[in-house]
Amino acid sequence: MSLMRRESILRDLTRREFAKLGVLGAAASLAPSLSAQSDQKKTGYAVIGLGRIASHFMPATRATSNSRVTALVSGHRDKALRIAAQYGIPESSIYNYENFDSIASNKAVDAVYVALPNSMHAEYTARAAKAGKHVLCEKPMAISVAECESMIAACKSAGVKLMIAYRCQYEPIHLKAISLIRSGAIGKVQGIEAAFGFNIEPGEWRLDKKMSGGGPMVDVGIYALNASRYLTGEEPESFAAFSSVIDHDGRFNQVEENLSWTTRFPSGILAACNTTYGADMTGFFKVHGSKGWIDVNPAFNYEGLHLRARYPGANLDMPSTAHDPYQFQAEAEHFSHCVQNNLEPKTPGEEGLRDIRYIAEIYRVANKRA
Amino acid sequence: MSLMRRESILRDLTRREFAKLGVLGAAASLAPSLSAQSDQKKTGYAVIGLGRIASHFMPATRATSNSRVTALVSGHRDKALRIAAQYGIPESSIYNYENFDSIASNKAVDAVYVALPNSMHAEYTARAAKAGKHVLCEKPMAISVAECESMIAACKSAGVKLMIAYRCQYEPIHLKAISLIRSGAIGKVQGIEAAFGFNIEPGEWRLDKKMSGGGPMVDVGIYALNASRYLTGEEPESFAAFSSVIDHDGRFNQVEENLSWTTRFPSGILAACNTTYGADMTGFFKVHGSKGWIDVNPAFNYEGLHLRARYPGANLDMPSTAHDPYQFQAEAEHFSHCVQNNLEPKTPGEEGLRDIRYIAEIYRVANKRA
Repeated sequence: MSLMRRESILRDLTRREFAKLGVLGAAASLAPSLSAQSDQKKTGYAVIGLGRIASHFMPATRATSNSRVTALVSGHRDKALRIAAQYGIPESSIYNYENFDSIASNKAVDAVYVALPNSMHAEYTARAAKAGKHVLCEKPMAISVAECESMIAACKSAGVKLMIAYRCQYEPIHLKAISLIRSGAIGKVQGIEAAFGFNIEPGEWRLDKKMSGGGPMVDVGIYALNASRYLTGEEPESFAAFSSVIDHDGRFNQVEENLSWTTRFPSGILAACNTTYGADMTGFFKVHGSKGWIDVNPAFNYEGLHLRARYPGANLDMPSTAHDPYQFQAEAEHFSHCVQNNLEPKTPGEEGLRDIRYIAEIYRVANKRA
Repeated sequence: MSLMRRESILRDLTRREFAKLGVLGAAASLAPSLSAQSDQKKTGYAVIGLGRIASHFMPATRATSNSRVTALVSGHRDKALRIAAQYGIPESSIYNYENFDSIASNKAVDAVYVALPNSMHAEYTARAAKAGKHVLCEKPMAISVAECESMIAACKSAGVKLMIAYRCQYEPIHLKAISLIRSGAIGKVQGIEAAFGFNIEPGEWRLDKKMSGGGPMVDVGIYALNASRYLTGEEPESFAAFSSVIDHDGRFNQVEENLSWTTRFPSGILAACNTTYGADMTGFFKVHGSKGWIDVNPAFNYEGLHLRARYPGANLDMPSTAHDPYQFQAEAEHFSHCVQNNLEPKTPGEEGLRDIRYIAEIYRVANKRA
């Protein structure tokens, strides 16, 4: 993605760096403890799919106190061997898509991080659950409501935890925005604008609807949708939407290029949102309350987030000093904490399912008008 | 309006100050000439309605080379006398709403600036036209499509010009954004976000639907709507919208408090927009193209506009150094130039009518869902 820094610069975040964020309280409440556990006590993750997103997650675990990568699942053995060497993973803990189910007997693996194309989330979540492993699954949860429901059922019947990797819900700038809103600092929220998009390269699997389940809406628009929900603390009442294709250059034969939607929440809060695969659209959100406002821009990048807010007695300008892969560290720490203490994750399968239901409705109303 | 500086600080803009804008070309192309005309050659305006907006327009004419205020129309004679003294207007050129039609014989008056509540625009435009005076009418043009049509017909049959005071269409930062888009600098436009709103005081005439014709949509949302049209250079194909009232405190018994809409343009460009009377919502727009973006924030205030843009080879950061009432100066200069040279204004009645038609459609689809 052109707007995100793809290079993952591993930085071990120290307490001092956390403190610089000015929101240590929020971050600390999620993290179990900043004192490192012994390797045996850390939650061991098998990473399935060694692509871009996994390249953020894996180094992030090293910065956590409670998580480590203990197995890899890949169709590319050479790549897996190279990464295994970096993480001290024995060759016996490298799996492929055929022998993955034998991971059940690997005691170093407590959980599986599903970082595959969207269409494979449901199958590998179910197989991981059957193998008795907890599941941390990337967003979007799956490519249909039915798949999401089957994933929840599979994890429930296996007695394992399921969390959707909504990294922003573990990120201090977003948590700060939420806490400002809940505190009443900006008064009653009336309107929200949010957007996220980028100019996609031809040939990406995301353009293949069978693999992705949709276009920018499911991939990056979901950040704006999810944000509108956690910022308001409400569930959407109804949607209105349009989608379009402008560039008939072969990229958008299966999925939309642009999607614009508006949401009405039960309290009357309205959100106007945009997403695209055809333009640089730095992710942002603005929240307008009766007493002030919050503007986070960039909001959905891996680093460099910036919150500005104005309300009686305050004029905040809060750039995040956290560096990628901090967001992945925060989410891994949360899930490991839940696994170790038998707690329900803050973003369980049900949270992922909700967005997939809403996206299905957004597509339905957008297509009705087309 | 809480977000706009109500105090109008009269500043005579010099050539040097124009040049600081870095967009002199655009401004100069609208202005007839920066060398002052003799008073006899200047277009003489009768100002109808001596409220807030007129208090920006009147000092602005002093900064123009081709316009002056030569008459006042008001129900408050004391106020009119006070202002008349400031502008050297003879007492014989002060009218009230009853004797207004006798302005026909006042040779010092070439045009009328209609700065009345929205519901009075149609009547006074028609009476001005009948008196043989050109009409510069504030936005929104009127409170119904039928009224707009009657205003256009009245001016046409009287052989006078009609311009709607869309100040942003004469403002250099907006003109710069438009010219960047038309030049192809940011590639093909895909998506736009725009918003404008403010927290309204109880008791304002704008909350009385008979006088205003609607809520924030007709008053300030119209800026976002109009911008989406001049930025794209296209006419909307369809709208989807929601409206709501959150604050049941007596302000919103007749008009909406919030309105969120999305527009589909024929090329496929999508715009997501918000307006409110319940929150600080600084006017802004963002335009996302295949090769770059433009972000203007604030966009719709009377001064302090700020354009940022990123596209191949450029990283623009362009704050406007023009001060209120510059925007009113620019629009007055344009209309006077048209009057003096028998040219059609850039924002004629038909332009105002279009927005009123679109707003009627936005209300229709918003109410359908309610």
